[in-house]
Amino acid sequence: MPRYKLTLEYDGTGLVGWQRQAKGRSVQQILEEAVARFCGAVAVVHGAGRTDAGVHALGQCAHLDLPREIAPDTIRGALNQHVKPEAVAVLAVERVADDFDARRAARLRVYLYRILNRRPPPTVERGRVWHVAPLLDDAAMRAAAQLLLGRHDFTTFRDSLCQARSPVKTLDALTVLRAGDEIRIEARARSFLHHQVRNMVGTLKLVGAGKWRVGDVAAALAARDRRAGGPTAPPEGLYLVDVIYPGP
Amino acid sequence: MPRYKLTLEYDGTGLVGWQRQAKGRSVQQILEEAVARFCGAVAVVHGAGRTDAGVHALGQCAHLDLPREIAPDTIRGALNQHVKPEAVAVLAVERVADDFDARRAARLRVYLYRILNRRPPPTVERGRVWHVAPLLDDAAMRAAAQLLLGRHDFTTFRDSLCQARSPVKTLDALTVLRAGDEIRIEARARSFLHHQVRNMVGTLKLVGAGKWRVGDVAAALAARDRRAGGPTAPPEGLYLVDVIYPGP
Repeated sequence: MPRYKLTLEYDGTGLVGWQRQAKGRSVQQILEEAVARFCGAVAVVHGAGRTDAGVHALGQCAHLDLPREIAPDTIRGALNQHVKPEAVAVLAVERVADDFDARRAARLRVYLYRILNRRPPPTVERGRVWHVAPLLDDAAMRAAAQLLLGRHDFTTFRDSLCQARSPVKTLDALTVLRAGDEIRIEARARSFLHHQVRNMVGTLKLVGAGKWRVGDVAAALAARDRRAGGPTAPPEGLYLVDVIYPGP
Repeated sequence: MPRYKLTLEYDGTGLVGWQRQAKGRSVQQILEEAVARFCGAVAVVHGAGRTDAGVHALGQCAHLDLPREIAPDTIRGALNQHVKPEAVAVLAVERVADDFDARRAARLRVYLYRILNRRPPPTVERGRVWHVAPLLDDAAMRAAAQLLLGRHDFTTFRDSLCQARSPVKTLDALTVLRAGDEIRIEARARSFLHHQVRNMVGTLKLVGAGKWRVGDVAAALAARDRRAGGPTAPPEGLYLVDVIYPGP
């Protein structure tokens, strides 16, 4: 059966996340139902990252097998028709090797976390940012982020439900930029633990608010204990921006 | 009674626009109710621009009179509390002269129109952009926009319900920029006719789609007839970005 790679965008608001759940609508289910309506196939759509409930994607990737060869542009158009009215879009479809695995083959995952840092609540960006009213010190957050770079045991930033075999991950980038009222945190790694980005952001926010000193983040990391980390930042500020695969 | 200037942001989705209507929720009504709940005053909130149903604002301005002097930051905080759960935010409050008029004193209004120009529908930006699937020629749109600059009779781009005394307006800027999948059109003028921005955008889109030549826009403007113009672009792509007043 021919295999296809999908590049996906979605608004996570109101969805239970990527993965099928007993209750609620998941991105996976929405896509699988669209595939069934489009070509009658019962296909599993395998995602590169299991985004949580409320988390958005600008460039999630996935793969699926179809019963016959279909032109990628036809698949894209048909799926975008059949996912309606859900806020899920197929940006691109590519025919890939039969053994391509969207999750295992990914070399880099890029997440963006958006904090709206101003007194008034969000309006146009409601559900798309974390609203933090007190002014955050983004320079301190930037300095603290540096302490998390590289290969570490990230148990402090790992959700208790995380199923990864090892808590050791390599964080390639964690940039903190302010653009007006918005603080944008970009995280890059081959893979992340469950809630790792949101737990790191929740911790950096404590530094930005002056509740933690920069060095406290190094101590928290070294503790290798979830209770030593900051709270989990809410899902609505998080975007899976890109999944990068090895070149041809 | 002391007068205050408000700078406002709102998501126009689901609202009937700025102005109070017999049916539906307007921004004006939401603010006036919040004022009443906050300090018991029955105040009229006068806006600088009467945005239509579904149109957003990032920097609408308004003025209102309160029965007593209240610190601007207190007003801002209280109004933001009392407008909940509506997607309206008071960004800034300023004590102004008793004869300041948000509508009449405005020297420049800045609107942004966002077109999402790609095959897949919007997800995260749904309700915040106009989705146009066929690839638009933004260079042609830019050339056509130049033909509308300056002082003209804009009857061709004026809604039949427009109540302005004269159809003659001076358009100071109409820029067309592409950023990836998005075409951003910024319009600047002291004032606009009803639907003028959306009618100009709807016309530029015909040029971008190759249905009109660039020069057809000059002919349409010269016709001074609404039937000579393109269709009205939908409200969800339009943002009142800024209202500029004379300096002190």
